[in-house]
Amino acid sequence: MTRVTEADVRAHLDAQARPPGSLGRIEDLAVRLALIQQTMTPRTGRVTLLLFAGDHGLTQDGVSRYPAEVTQAMVATLLAGKATANAFARAVGAEVVVIDAGVDADLAHPDLVDAKVRRGSRNAARAAAMTVEELELALERGQAQAAAAIEAGADVLALGEMGIGNSASAALLMHRLLPASLADSVGAGAGHDAEGLAHKLAVLTRAAERSDAVEPFEVLRQFGGLEIAMMAGAIHGAAERSTPVLVDGFICTAAALAAVRMRPDAREVCLFAHRSAEAGHDRMLRALEAEPLLDLSLRLGEGTGALLAAPLLRAAAALLADVASLDDVLAGRL
Amino acid sequence: MTRVTEADVRAHLDAQARPPGSLGRIEDLAVRLALIQQTMTPRTGRVTLLLFAGDHGLTQDGVSRYPAEVTQAMVATLLAGKATANAFARAVGAEVVVIDAGVDADLAHPDLVDAKVRRGSRNAARAAAMTVEELELALERGQAQAAAAIEAGADVLALGEMGIGNSASAALLMHRLLPASLADSVGAGAGHDAEGLAHKLAVLTRAAERSDAVEPFEVLRQFGGLEIAMMAGAIHGAAERSTPVLVDGFICTAAALAAVRMRPDAREVCLFAHRSAEAGHDRMLRALEAEPLLDLSLRLGEGTGALLAAPLLRAAAALLADVASLDDVLAGRL
Repeated sequence: MTRVTEADVRAHLDAQARPPGSLGRIEDLAVRLALIQQTMTPRTGRVTLLLFAGDHGLTQDGVSRYPAEVTQAMVATLLAGKATANAFARAVGAEVVVIDAGVDADLAHPDLVDAKVRRGSRNAARAAAMTVEELELALERGQAQAAAAIEAGADVLALGEMGIGNSASAALLMHRLLPASLADSVGAGAGHDAEGLAHKLAVLTRAAERSDAVEPFEVLRQFGGLEIAMMAGAIHGAAERSTPVLVDGFICTAAALAAVRMRPDAREVCLFAHRSAEAGHDRMLRALEAEPLLDLSLRLGEGTGALLAAPLLRAAAALLADVASLDDVLAGRL
Repeated sequence: MTRVTEADVRAHLDAQARPPGSLGRIEDLAVRLALIQQTMTPRTGRVTLLLFAGDHGLTQDGVSRYPAEVTQAMVATLLAGKATANAFARAVGAEVVVIDAGVDADLAHPDLVDAKVRRGSRNAARAAAMTVEELELALERGQAQAAAAIEAGADVLALGEMGIGNSASAALLMHRLLPASLADSVGAGAGHDAEGLAHKLAVLTRAAERSDAVEPFEVLRQFGGLEIAMMAGAIHGAAERSTPVLVDGFICTAAALAAVRMRPDAREVCLFAHRSAEAGHDRMLRALEAEPLLDLSLRLGEGTGALLAAPLLRAAAALLADVASLDDVLAGRL
């Protein structure tokens, strides 16, 4: 089968009834979609947010200003359709699938996908966050969730997370995988003051001293979280099925970084939705050679930034499919 | 009647089940929408793009790389639903109204709104672009178009334009109203090379030397275009009806600048959609104290950037309406 190339897509765009290049980054996005899906008419109608929730042993050492119980309260809010991700998903016309990757509670709800590996990761300041078996299971289940969503008709996946303490875990991943200093990797997360930030940095310094892992699977095992590992697995699953993935903010980007370091061809399907307000995000994006679509000072997570970028993908797809060529306009063939 | 204040809206947002401030510019946008519409539940469902088309006498002196006839060809393309604005409008769920403000051709189409003041503005390099009566008529008709769209149910207006040569007219408005040097105001428009740009600057220098007008109505009369004046009138019409207006790129922002200088309270309803690739746009935005929502290197016009920002308004409105409070979450009231 003939492959769709960037030259094909650019030639199609350049022949349209508008000045060549006049749609800037939307043209680049159209090229990316066409190359990922290998078609001149990419499909973007059905966008499914896979929202993975998990708890973090690191919270035992006070890395978050919120108690760990907030994770399960927010999962309940998401399942009730009353969290920000639900509101944004309705606003942009996307579906939300809430997945229990490792919440530290016994949850049961007809709409909750049970993919729990264990009740929370271990405290990475004192021990590896996961065993090899646990990490393998998390990656596999993330991959399976992506496969199931695509099988059910998703054209585009969006990724999101909920997990008190997970910006601490993401900072450790960034620190070790980029690499970057811990000071450059740690940010205010859900809203630390200077004192809280200093304490978070001190706890993460202890964690980093515990293991000198640099190999990506092992870094993820030592410092990752169950929902972060599952997002990485979902990116692998999307890559196998040539499906675009909207990557959300700092924590989701850390998952993408791990996914890409484990499997470089997974970079191709990743579309980075936004530059978040979290300190280290911009640096991590640059290391991934990613220029995000939006820059709105978001720092919530839940896939909210990924959802906001979905309409831009639909516009890029519509650009390829629905705009007349200059030749047709000049010849009056409309 | 009690007025909705910024403090009311911020208090509502801060009480939601997420870290305060975690949605950055979407929160600011929610505040703006609530204040404009004076409600805690802004309406953003129906977005109507008013797309004004007009020709420019300046094209006689070669300020554009495209022939003036392209304006009418693109109006036909828009009416056939095959221009980029149509594609983007379908992608984001918006309506398009195409308005003949002053195209230099006899156009007739059941879907074209005939608001033509004259067939093209006069050549501003040699004479005032409009008479006082023509400018008054253009402003009135723009205002009437906004009123009609709002009457027909539009919650939000988006503005767009089509007019070969109109980036030259907009540069003159920026130069005189900001003020800024002509060199800082003139850009590549639809795609000049260095030689074309130098020629455009030379023509506009002659135009600027012809009149020393600084009063906004007179600047618009001397240097404006019919579609630009009609967009300014539409902004006034939206301001009178407390309706948010998505302002598109360089040319539309020049219209907003003129509208706001004529009537400062019109600034309140203007939401600046994007920072375009046209050289002077960023400077004009800063003069209007506008931080645009998107930055995608667009330089097409047709309201394309305004359309792409519409989903962000809907997300901001959904944030206000559809997200649980932290109190409700903690009390299990979901």
